[in-house]
Parts: sequence; C-alpha cells; structure tokens
Amino acid sequence: MDSYLIQVNGHGDHAPVLDVHLKTNGNSISLGKVKGRKPRWAVRASEMSKKTFNPVRAIVDSMKVEPNPKKAMISLSLGDPTVFGNLPTNDEVTRAMKEALDSGHYNGYAPSVGYQSCREAVAAYYNCPEAPLEAQDVILTSGCSQAIELALAVLANPGQNILVPRPGFSLYKTLALSMGIEVKLYNLLPEKAWEIDLEHLESLVDEKTACLIVNNPSNPCGSVFSKSHLQKILAVASRQCVPVLADEIYGDMVFADCKYEPIATLSTNVPILSCGGLAKRWLVPGWRMGWILIHDRRDIFGNEIRDGLVRLSQRILGPCTIVQGALERILHRTPPEFYHNTLSILKSNADLCYAALSAIPGLQPVQPAGAMYLMVEIEMEHFPEFENDVEFTERLISEQSVFCLPATCFEYPNFFRVVITVPEEMILEACSRIQEFCEMHYQGAEGAQDLECDK
Amino acid sequence: MDSYLIQVNGHGDHAPVLDVHLKTNGNSISLGKVKGRKPRWAVRASEMSKKTFNPVRAIVDSMKVEPNPKKAMISLSLGDPTVFGNLPTNDEVTRAMKEALDSGHYNGYAPSVGYQSCREAVAAYYNCPEAPLEAQDVILTSGCSQAIELALAVLANPGQNILVPRPGFSLYKTLALSMGIEVKLYNLLPEKAWEIDLEHLESLVDEKTACLIVNNPSNPCGSVFSKSHLQKILAVASRQCVPVLADEIYGDMVFADCKYEPIATLSTNVPILSCGGLAKRWLVPGWRMGWILIHDRRDIFGNEIRDGLVRLSQRILGPCTIVQGALERILHRTPPEFYHNTLSILKSNADLCYAALSAIPGLQPVQPAGAMYLMVEIEMEHFPEFENDVEFTERLISEQSVFCLPATCFEYPNFFRVVITVPEEMILEACSRIQEFCEMHYQGAEGAQDLECDK
Ligand SMILES: Cc1ncc(COP(=O)(O)O)c(C=O)c1O
Ligand SMILES: Cc1ncc(COP(=O)(O)O)c(C=O)c1O
Repeated sequence: MDSYLIQVNGHGDHAPVLDVHLKTNGNSISLGKVKGRKPRWAVRASEMSKKTFNPVRAIVDSMKVEPNPKKAMISLSLGDPTVFGNLPTNDEVTRAMKEALDSGHYNGYAPSVGYQSCREAVAAYYNCPEAPLEAQDVILTSGCSQAIELALAVLANPGQNILVPRPGFSLYKTLALSMGIEVKLYNLLPEKAWEIDLEHLESLVDEKTACLIVNNPSNPCGSVFSKSHLQKILAVASRQCVPVLADEIYGDMVFADCKYEPIATLSTNVPILSCGGLAKRWLVPGWRMGWILIHDRRDIFGNEIRDGLVRLSQRILGPCTIVQGALERILHRTPPEFYHNTLSILKSNADLCYAALSAIPGLQPVQPAGAMYLMVEIEMEHFPEFENDVEFTERLISEQSVFCLPATCFEYPNFFRVVITVPEEMILEACSRIQEFCEMHYQGAEGAQDLECDK
Repeated sequence: MDSYLIQVNGHGDHAPVLDVHLKTNGNSISLGKVKGRKPRWAVRASEMSKKTFNPVRAIVDSMKVEPNPKKAMISLSLGDPTVFGNLPTNDEVTRAMKEALDSGHYNGYAPSVGYQSCREAVAAYYNCPEAPLEAQDVILTSGCSQAIELALAVLANPGQNILVPRPGFSLYKTLALSMGIEVKLYNLLPEKAWEIDLEHLESLVDEKTACLIVNNPSNPCGSVFSKSHLQKILAVASRQCVPVLADEIYGDMVFADCKYEPIATLSTNVPILSCGGLAKRWLVPGWRMGWILIHDRRDIFGNEIRDGLVRLSQRILGPCTIVQGALERILHRTPPEFYHNTLSILKSNADLCYAALSAIPGLQPVQPAGAMYLMVEIEMEHFPEFENDVEFTERLISEQSVFCLPATCFEYPNFFRVVITVPEEMILEACSRIQEFCEMHYQGAEGAQDLECDK
C-alpha cells in the first residue's frame, strides 16, 4: 500500500501550506518544488497588500444603507470639486494641454523626476526670498498622493514613527502602515479653529520620530493656520529636530479674510518636504500632477534625501508628460480671476452652510477659512438614538438621502465632514434636510434624561 | 564644572547618532526628544530608498566619457521610440486625447483602478475565447512600470524570491530588491533565439518562489517566443505551481514572419498577471498608461489577489484621467496601418542592422523577431584591449560617438544592446562607425596570441 507522508511547509511568511509527499513502493515521485514534495497552488496576497488599508473605503463600504427613494441623493462626501460641473477648470488650462499635445514634443519619456523645464517652472512659481527654490528642489510626482508616498518612503524606516494630525487625511496612515511605519496622532483643537495642541504634539516625539506631517489648509477641517501658529509648530520641529512633511495641496486656497503662509517661508533651519499639485487649486484632480518641493537651507537633508527621492521616482517614472508639457503654461497663464472665482464660490458656500447648520439644534459646525470642507460636531447626547457619527450619517442617508462622511474616517468620532464645492442650491437643500433630520431626532435635556430613565 | 555624558542613541535602524546629554550642577536640561537628551539633526534616507537601485543609471553614470567632438553623437541606447521624430504616434491617438479634454468629463478623480468604461474597453480589446476578460479583470496603472510594481507587491513578501530572465529588463530587480524580495536569474539562450533554459529555470524554483516573470517579446533581446516554447514555460509554472507575471508591454510588436501569442491564451490553469500599456505599441511612453490583466480561470488568485491589487492601487490613484478618457478611442480607432507601418520600419531597421553588424569581425548579432532591440555579442577574445562590454561601449563613444548600452545593464556581460527605432540613415551611419571601431581594435587569432605573449 502507498504511504503518505504529510509535511507542513511554510510558504514565505504565510499560512502554512500542506504539501503532500507521495511514496509508492519506496520510490519517491519528485515533481515538487523541492525534491520529493508535490507543489500545490497556494497563492496568497502579500502582507503589504493586506496592510494597505483605506479606512474611508472600509467605513463607507460598511454603511450598507439605501437612500430614501422619495428624495434625490445629495452627496456632500467626495473631495472632488469637479463632480457637479459648477467648478470647471479654466480654459487656459485645457488649452495648455492641447498645445502640449499638438506640439508632439511630450510623448516620450521624461526624466523620472520630471522635465527640467517643468521643474524650473514649478520652482519659479513657488520661489520667494524667504524660501528660495531651484529646479533641483522640485520632484514631479503622480499626484500629491505619490508626493506623500515618496516623502514618507524616503524619510522613514519600518519601525520608526510619524506624527499625523487628528482629525486628518486618511492617506497618511494608509501609506505609513503599509510601510511598517507607526502613526502617532496629535490633536487638533476644534475650539481653537483646529490649531494643533502643541504640547500634545511635542509629547509624542521620541527618538524614533521620522517626520511631522502638517496639513495646511486642512482636509477635513477647512482650517488655515496663522503665521504665528505655524511659527510655533516650527519651533517644536526645530527643538526636537524633526523634519516636516507639509501637505500643502490646498495651498493658496484660503478665503479673502485670511492669509496662506507656506510653512517653508517661516523657517530658516527646519528641513521641509512640501507636497502639492494641480488637483485642487486648478480643479483637475484626475490629471495626477503633483510635486515635492525640497526646502533644506541648512543642508540637513543633504544629498542623501535628494538622491533617495530621485531613486524612488525611478520606480514608476513620474507623471503624464502631456500634463508636464502643459504645466508651465498652466501656472503662468491661468488668470487670477479664475482662482478668485473659485474661492468666492467656496467662501459663499461655506458661509451659507455654516449659517444654516449653526441654526440646527444639536449640531455645532466649525467655521472654515479655506480648502473645501467644513466639520460639524454632533452633540451625541442630544441624539441618543444613534450610537455614533457613523450611525448618524447612515440614518441621514436612509431618511434624507444626504451623504456626509462620518469623521470616524478621519479618526475623529462624533463629527461629520461636509464638502462645500457643491452648487449652492444643493447645499441649501442638503442643510434643510439635515435640519429636518435633526429636528426629528433631537432630544432636549429633559428628553435625553427621560430616555436615560427608560433604560 | 559641567559634566558631559555622551550616549549613543540609535536613530531608527540607522547609523547611530550621538545625542549629547548635558548636565549642569546635577540639573538635567531636558529639551530632548527623550527627556534629558538634546536632539540633533540627523535625517537619513530610508533603507528602502537606498535599496532602490537602477543598475542602468549606475552603469551609465559611471561611463564618464566624452563623445568624439568630430562626430555627431548617435544614441542607440534609449528604449524611447519617440526621440528621433521618425515614429510619431497616430493622429487618432492625439485626437482622442483632445476629445477627452474638450468633453470636460475627465478632470475629476477616477476610481483608483480606473474608470469602469476604460476597464471594459481594455477587457474587450484583449478578450478572446481562450483567455476571456471582463472589466473586473483589468487594473489601470501609471505605466507598465507601476503595473509590474503592483503585481510584484501583491504576489511576493520580503524574503520570498522571483524568477527573472537574464538578460532582462532591469526594473524587475530594482523593484524586487527595494521590497526585500530575492531575485533568481534564469538563463536565456542566445543560440536558441533567446529561448528560456527551461531546466535551469525549473532548478531555481523553491518553496519561496512567489512568481515567474516572463517577458515576451523581450527587452533587451528583441526575441519572440513560439507557441510551443510558451507552452513549455507554462508546463514548468503549472508543475511547480508558480504564478506568472507576464510583461507583455511589447505585445503584438512582432515582425510579419512570426506570431505573438499572449501567454494567458495558452494556459487553462496557471494564474497570470499580464502587464501592458500604451507606451510602446502606441508610441506614447510618457503618457504613463499601463494595465494589469488578471487571468485566473481556476480561481487560484481568488479574491485575495484582486482585492490586494485594488487596495494597492489606492495608494496613488491610477493613471491620468485624460488618457483614460481617450483610451477606448485609442484602442478602437487607431488604424491598423499605423501598427503595420511601425512594424515594417522596425523590421527593415532590424534587417539592415543585423546584416551590417553580421559583417563586422568580432561581433555576433542575434536576429530579433519583435520589440525594438537587438543584442550583439562581442567576441571579447578578439578585443583584448577591452576588459568587458562596459569598456568596449565606452570607447565606442569616445572614438565614434556611438552610444549602445552595455548588456551588463541587463546582467549579461560581453554583449551590447542596439535600439532599432532610430532613423535608417542613423542606423547605417552607426553601423559603419561600429565597423570602423571594430576593425581598428580587432585582433585576429594570432594577434590575440601575440598580445598574450607580450604580457
Ligand atoms: C490633504 C490632502 N492631501 C493630499 C491629497 C491627494 O491629492 P492628489 O489627488 O493630488 O493625489 C488630498 C486629496 O483629497 C488631500 O485632501
Ligand atoms: C520590458 C519592459 N517592461 C516594462 C517597461 C515599462 O513600461 P512603461 O514605460 O509603460 O512603464 C519597459 C520600458 O522600457 C520595458 O522595456
């Protein structure tokens, strides 16, 4: 009779795979990967792919709710300013692309960090006496997302940690965890217009801290840091010798009563990688044009970080060359009115939305000063029906067909985020539905107590 | 007097950093990252960025030679078919881009794996009865480079190994090593038109083998595998239960006397990730449009690999949406004559080049059947002046201003690679200069012996 010897044989670092070794009359049949073992198909997704986890997707996918069929859906959830058609990009931007196409000069490979002329154009655009930039300080990337990916990948090793805002954009954590980098969340303070809790920030620094992420203007808060607050943040970075990864994708997108300061203009010593791109200000997020600006006036990054970024860029070879070919014209020809127009729409929507939500019992919106968002606190004690912000926003969909992201997506429970790029009528309609919803479910102080007693 | 306590304090996994702990009259000044230590700036590039290493860059950068000022430089080194203007893309391709721009529909974010309509278009284009494809089997990426990056990232864990052709495209190793994946090189046989040494291939498989990379048609060889050879490769993969990463970026780019078989059409059980893109066949490498086609008829990858690819795509959010918006039209409207024309130019250049180089003493070109390259053996014993292919090609630059990549770039010493996308006159001029160069340095049998005796 045949004898079967069953061996457990680890496949990489993964779940063990049973390989059957078949013996027949003492003659081993050896077709296996290793002599004497018969291979079996056992293809597993890598650990890294499993660790790449987008919490927004996970939370949104778990919200299995149908909108109210009697009301048209209004989505205030997407950080994409183009979806409603009310914020088209400028004609000059499209024209620059067509010129790049027609020239026929931008079909081949560019250097992996971008064409020299484009790097020059970006450097010239952001150059200023306080933070001088040259072409070699610019790395072009496939969107600001890849800018952040490369910046993290060059600054941090597995086992190190990075400091990330709470509430904050989820990509930081997604990327860091996939690379085995620990995330330490520092608090933003809603009562101080989302300034950083500097003491908390500084208390998190340890010898394994690889960088501090500062996102200004902020997604999801719509907040804009003052010059003096930025100086205090830089003082922490300087004292603790922690380089800054500045996510400035909403740079210059601030309302008229407030000023945007690129963080690099306020420091002479802290080395800074500033990540930006065309996505938001030029209203073309799909084009995937981003950049890293290297600010290193004390030569602390030195050649090592620059060379590292260049090497990392060689993995996938930079952004689309047509957009690169158009970049200089996009930066120089887009008329100032275009930017002003976008901002005045955003400001007007922000004001409308803030006023409408302020009047709703149980909600506390925080006034934004830039970007495209507004955060709203849910006074959960007045909505005892709902466990948390996820349940609250779920029911808002099923009853009112209004979709806002629960701020649990940004590690900040009991808030939700409203996107203010949607057309005015939709904002107003959404706010009035939110009002109806809240009035329906709000429990005043006594009501809440009653409910407490019922338990 | 002050006492100084000097501590060595590891910064991540890196070179130790000296942190000075300053004690004054027993009172510790504790501004440091860790109480009692004074932080110092010590920003190092990550291990990963250091491991990301492009051998072509390193070798080419080390070739510090000036071309001969009396002869215009002819570069036969770049795998970019657009540089000389003799191979423009088709007007329909450019027109499709303009339509996508004008529509205004493709400025926003696409799903990270690409628009559904684009995935459908690619699936329909490559679908066939032997290898059916649906939209969900297609992941759009930023160039074929990112397709390869994602495919490797989902299939292999650090510590596992992959099987890579020698000679072969250097990106496989660059990506694998940066991810901590081991590379095992299997031999291609020049005397068999660069078929795989199947015995050698199979001998390399072990229980840590995560995938087999098959590049057909090949860079740098210009070879095209026959159906029966591909079947034998698949037999190895099937027997050893190793999934295939097929790099088919030169798919369909084969000369008239030969047929291209997508490897997935020849297997019913081996799971295959086929990587491709617009770069080469449509002559727009800068546009960074690539894709992964998932072939998994036995459900061996299952949801795990698909989901892993989707998750990984969320890191940088796919290719430029304008190119996505144009993709369906590019695939369907590009006239067949365009492809035929490209191939007949390549074929004619390949023949000219092969004939010219065959006549040169000391060189042995290998006839190509597709792609854009041709490999040439240097009979080093006849060129005793030169240590290796790198020296040979260096001197070819300084004397003749002709630049060919030494095949050491592809892990294959004593060959060099010629790119056949350059205009005919340049190929002919380059070949005649190579001839002059070889005649100058060639040592016949006796000559070589003489030199041996001189030593
Ligand atoms: C704060 C922040 N950073 C980065 C990004 C990514 O930008 P991109 O689309 O250019 O990758 C976003 C996009 O929403 C963002 O909100
Ligand atoms: C064999 C091979 N695979 C992949 C690529 C990368 O293609 P892409 O430019 O689309 O990233 C190349 C480019 O030269 C190649 O030769």
